Amino acid sequence: MQKPEDIVTAWWQRIDAQAWDSAAELLHPDALAEWPHTDERFDASSLVEVNRNYPGTWRVTVDDIIASGDRATSFVRVTDGSETYAAASFWTVREGLVVNLVELWADCGQTPPAGRR
Amino acid sequence: MQKPEDIVTAWWQRIDAQAWDSAAELLHPDALAEWPHTDERFDASSLVEVNRNYPGTWRVTVDDIIASGDRATSFVRVTDGSETYAAASFWTVREGLVVNLVELWADCGQTPPAGRR
Repeated sequence: MQKPEDIVTAWWQRIDAQAWDSAAELLHPDALAEWPHTDERFDASSLVEVNRNYPGTWRVTVDDIIASGDRATSFVRVTDGSETYAAASFWTVREGLVVNLVELWADCGQTPPAGRR
Repeated sequence: MQKPEDIVTAWWQRIDAQAWDSAAELLHPDALAEWPHTDERFDASSLVEVNRNYPGTWRVTVDDIIASGDRATSFVRVTDGSETYAAASFWTVREGLVVNLVELWADCGQTPPAGRR
């Protein structure tokens, strides 16, 4: 499993299954991740921990993957049956492991401004 | 200009320049766009109008583009000098025009939950 799209698919399968240690095996030891919406940065172990520690049981649906060379992007929705969030993730893979991730999360329940309702 | 990455680059250049009519020329007449965070859907003309009518002057920085076949994704940040938003866009191109767009916008000024601060 070296292709970026396969690694990204495996990541989301393992997050969906709450298989945190198994997800961690997809990350390069030097991996860096960034969440631009909160200006948070994570290394490999803290990225796994922030997922492991997030409260609730969230099921993941992968809507879209685009891959080229050592890069891939995914668009997923996650839901606990009550709330739904979407995530757009921009991955860089090296030697079959994730070395970089920029990931934007947004709440899907937002109300448009009055003029657009 | 037929390649998805060139069309996406041109889109953001024209949005940055507030060249709305010129941006509209990149959209297929049957184009459909979706914003999952607000569950809004736009046709070609309403997608241009929602950008044209958004208050303020926003400068666009394109951080990342990944393209493959007739697909592309972009990650951009926009700022009015005070607030910054990020957008992840998933594009489908046909005959040199955008036919589909799924675009997630998020405020970059969000505070992480207390446990992650």
